[in-house]
Amino acid sequence: MIQKIDHIGIAVKDLEKDTKFYRNVLGLSFEGYEDLPDRGIRIAVFNINDVRLELIQSLSPDSAIATFIERRGEGLHHIALGVDDAAEMLTGLVRNGVRAIDPEPRKGAGGSRVAFLDPRDTGHVLIEIYEKGRDGHKRK
Amino acid sequence: MIQKIDHIGIAVKDLEKDTKFYRNVLGLSFEGYEDLPDRGIRIAVFNINDVRLELIQSLSPDSAIATFIERRGEGLHHIALGVDDAAEMLTGLVRNGVRAIDPEPRKGAGGSRVAFLDPRDTGHVLIEIYEKGRDGHKRK
Repeated sequence: MIQKIDHIGIAVKDLEKDTKFYRNVLGLSFEGYEDLPDRGIRIAVFNINDVRLELIQSLSPDSAIATFIERRGEGLHHIALGVDDAAEMLTGLVRNGVRAIDPEPRKGAGGSRVAFLDPRDTGHVLIEIYEKGRDGHKRK
Repeated sequence: MIQKIDHIGIAVKDLEKDTKFYRNVLGLSFEGYEDLPDRGIRIAVFNINDVRLELIQSLSPDSAIATFIERRGEGLHHIALGVDDAAEMLTGLVRNGVRAIDPEPRKGAGGSRVAFLDPRDTGHVLIEIYEKGRDGHKRK
């Protein structure tokens, strides 16, 4: 079951510059930076009324974010839907004919389970199915 | 003051087709369709834990949405930040050097006051400042 919009991902080239805008100019609550080396990215996390905004910068030229920016430029990248059971949700969607980028949920940050859907089946939106981990996030 | 993410706008070509995905396959709560003739658009509105998802289809070839789809294709279009006072928020942002597409808030649906910021100053994200109207939305 879909419980909430967990976060919105934004692809950027200059994480520090854009963090200044969201933190100092918009005045959003800043939770910190986090490196996700297995995905080749570094993120800056903000919180607006319990929905996170994540600025995502590529740490490697072959990350999905680098490819995205090359193709479409910086900007809105994905929406993550918070669910209670990512595996169950994914199975149900695939049964309904939705193609998944991840055939089954993989381990994300803080013990989360995540899977991306194929934008061709979602109105051209990259949707992440996101099941929160028990141990939460650690950020600098 | 920013209170919440009010909604996320998604530019689509085929509103009915994509509505079926979000309504029937994802199973999101569907609030209805709404025409905004002065902006040349028709929207389909969904609600996830009090954050709306709006699919936006152009009704005219010269709408901002038609131009967006022509340039970038379908997909994530904007984030609307719910604020208590759109005029005050806009004044503060402009004073901080942020360019606004709307120099002052204009009337949106249901008595709302809205203004878009220039994506060049927001990390390439089209951000809408959104002050809710008193009379709310009417949808079919």
